[in-house]
Amino acid sequence: MKKILFAAAMMLCGTMYAQQALWGGGELASPEIHPDNTVTFRVRAPKAVSVQVSGDFLPETLIDTPQGKWAINVPADLKEGKDGVWEYTTAAPLDANYYTYNFIIDGKKELDLMNVFVNRDVKTLTNYFIITREKGDQGDLFSVNDVPHGTVRTCWYDSPSLGMKRRMTVYTPAGYEDNGKRYPVFYLLHGSGGDEEAWFTQGRVTQVLDNLIATGKAEPMILVMTNGNAYEQAAAGQAPGGFKQPEMVMGGVKSGMKEAAFELSFPEIRKYIEKHFRTINDKKHRAIAGLSMGSFHSEHISKYYAGEYGYVGLFSGASAGDGRRGKDEAGASPVYADFDKQMANLFSKKNKPYLYYIAIGKTDFLKAANDGMLKYMDEHGYPYEYVETEGGHIWRNWRTYFIDFSQKIFK
Amino acid sequence: MKKILFAAAMMLCGTMYAQQALWGGGELASPEIHPDNTVTFRVRAPKAVSVQVSGDFLPETLIDTPQGKWAINVPADLKEGKDGVWEYTTAAPLDANYYTYNFIIDGKKELDLMNVFVNRDVKTLTNYFIITREKGDQGDLFSVNDVPHGTVRTCWYDSPSLGMKRRMTVYTPAGYEDNGKRYPVFYLLHGSGGDEEAWFTQGRVTQVLDNLIATGKAEPMILVMTNGNAYEQAAAGQAPGGFKQPEMVMGGVKSGMKEAAFELSFPEIRKYIEKHFRTINDKKHRAIAGLSMGSFHSEHISKYYAGEYGYVGLFSGASAGDGRRGKDEAGASPVYADFDKQMANLFSKKNKPYLYYIAIGKTDFLKAANDGMLKYMDEHGYPYEYVETEGGHIWRNWRTYFIDFSQKIFK
Repeated sequence: MKKILFAAAMMLCGTMYAQQALWGGGELASPEIHPDNTVTFRVRAPKAVSVQVSGDFLPETLIDTPQGKWAINVPADLKEGKDGVWEYTTAAPLDANYYTYNFIIDGKKELDLMNVFVNRDVKTLTNYFIITREKGDQGDLFSVNDVPHGTVRTCWYDSPSLGMKRRMTVYTPAGYEDNGKRYPVFYLLHGSGGDEEAWFTQGRVTQVLDNLIATGKAEPMILVMTNGNAYEQAAAGQAPGGFKQPEMVMGGVKSGMKEAAFELSFPEIRKYIEKHFRTINDKKHRAIAGLSMGSFHSEHISKYYAGEYGYVGLFSGASAGDGRRGKDEAGASPVYADFDKQMANLFSKKNKPYLYYIAIGKTDFLKAANDGMLKYMDEHGYPYEYVETEGGHIWRNWRTYFIDFSQKIFK
Repeated sequence: MKKILFAAAMMLCGTMYAQQALWGGGELASPEIHPDNTVTFRVRAPKAVSVQVSGDFLPETLIDTPQGKWAINVPADLKEGKDGVWEYTTAAPLDANYYTYNFIIDGKKELDLMNVFVNRDVKTLTNYFIITREKGDQGDLFSVNDVPHGTVRTCWYDSPSLGMKRRMTVYTPAGYEDNGKRYPVFYLLHGSGGDEEAWFTQGRVTQVLDNLIATGKAEPMILVMTNGNAYEQAAAGQAPGGFKQPEMVMGGVKSGMKEAAFELSFPEIRKYIEKHFRTINDKKHRAIAGLSMGSFHSEHISKYYAGEYGYVGLFSGASAGDGRRGKDEAGASPVYADFDKQMANLFSKKNKPYLYYIAIGKTDFLKAANDGMLKYMDEHGYPYEYVETEGGHIWRNWRTYFIDFSQKIFK
């Protein structure tokens, strides 16, 4: 009797209406990661005419767009087998990494509902999985391992300059609650359309730090993930005003980029962190980095508040060469004005960072702009470290830069 | 040029492979909540033959199952209109609540990918939306409002009895970081197949507490959401060992129910909380409640550690009448032994709770067992408060009980 009751409970718990799922055919393993690191995707779609899988593990091709040629991954066809189950196995083993994918069923994008692991990138949902080949590779760093784990919290700080309470995500390293020590702080900024959840969910940064700190490869640190869209309080669904679907935030008024509203509010973030956490408050123990729009923010914050950040990371977004400085923005905000003067001040003996790190992918659409930044740095003799990777303006690169950068700071 | 670069960035950010989404037809509003609180669902599926929406806002019907008659919601048909867009509008306005749904396209369950808000219930993903009709109704309580927000963290505690570090979710009320005050603690336990994320994501409990505390209807409190599956460290995807898909955990060895492993480890949870948070450590300031398996846990913890919990909430799971006590479990663990004696001790003058709260739905499959518990309580003259609602073993009821219970404790 007990068993029957529990079986009944199992069928009903919270999904009463989902009888399709409950009494439908057997479950499928998808994705199935084989011992040789090939991966099989399966979906039951007996009425479908065509089923494909689209994902960042598939071969790339170039397509024409109004902005020129772009690399996209070519979807692979699943083949229909018994009972309407379609299947595809990768042609080769996959490298260690974090991969995202979805199905395309009769031309319509769908998720793999056999895989509950789903990420949101702005307004796009995708399934994900991780391939680990050996200890210490990227797949291993992105995984939850049997190491001490930090605490991850979302909390709200006051931003008088923006006239609102705003949400952020803060990671404190394992042991923080018990040891009374003070820690360095790394401020990590998202890109256009992202929010305070982006690095945490898509970047796997808390797993990476747990693993790098446990193996002594990164210093124990506090990691602060802010919301860089100056005119919103929090990620979609987490702010007052109902469930507005997230939108890509263009440069300009909505994101506050033109007025440098986020950069000017940044001291309020530091104020909250330094009041509520055991931080070490000097240049040597403070880092800032960001991807794309967050790179732009990091570049401007680091020079406008010259001497405050000892480590600066510009991931896929260094701006000096692309015409964004000194023209329309110069008039709009002191943050963007006097670029040359601010940079000279940043790289003065007193203020200069221990690390100024610029990273970008070879096919990133901002590559030319970034080249301009490198040229600017070279012409002025400002020291920097440069990393160039394959691929474009993609999370795979940002995760790679984070792993690299986080091992170089506070040392 | 700048605009073009940013437009390009928008198209590419992190979804390079998803050209379907990027260059496919226009976006659809789905779900669209109209001013009169009817709701329209839309999906573009030009090749589909049939499209339905399945959700807990739809009328119920009874179906036959091996366990007897069950209520399910009847899926509604969408109609195809222009450009392959299918549409359905609810026949009537919806009441204020939190609703979940999915599409059924040609017989296959799919998510609404125009709606990024997705919840996981054990291994089932569903979209969700909230209807609010007026201030203070359930929809309003489930929403993020312009009130002070608490901090939500996931942290790891040591469980020597289970031989592992384990993850939990902890809510501290707004102001906790700044005021130095001590707070009462409410331990909130999930059901079979759930984990330390269930109440937080599906229960909307942090939003509910933010709202109830802001309006003075609930006392400021610390809310602790544990993982009640004694032999796992954390929710699926958050524990070492890779991305195992979650499974319903049956009563018995795997969940540790038979040995009462979770109940016996509970003091380790309290130890972590009382060491790391500013708690008030007496019966008057300590509550425990849970749903289904968590109700079972709460019932046994509250009597085995009699006198420690001043407020006990049994949501859809009170067990005394259903044969689970005193038989197989009795031999397995002292926690389940001597039920009568333990209950008498719990309701002794010294130990008796200020509130013993039992709630269940009229069509819950545990209703008969719960009736047995009420009978037992009545026969022994133990005071309790009883709440009976429509519906069965569903989250809608558990959210309702949480809202009710959390306003009755610590007062």
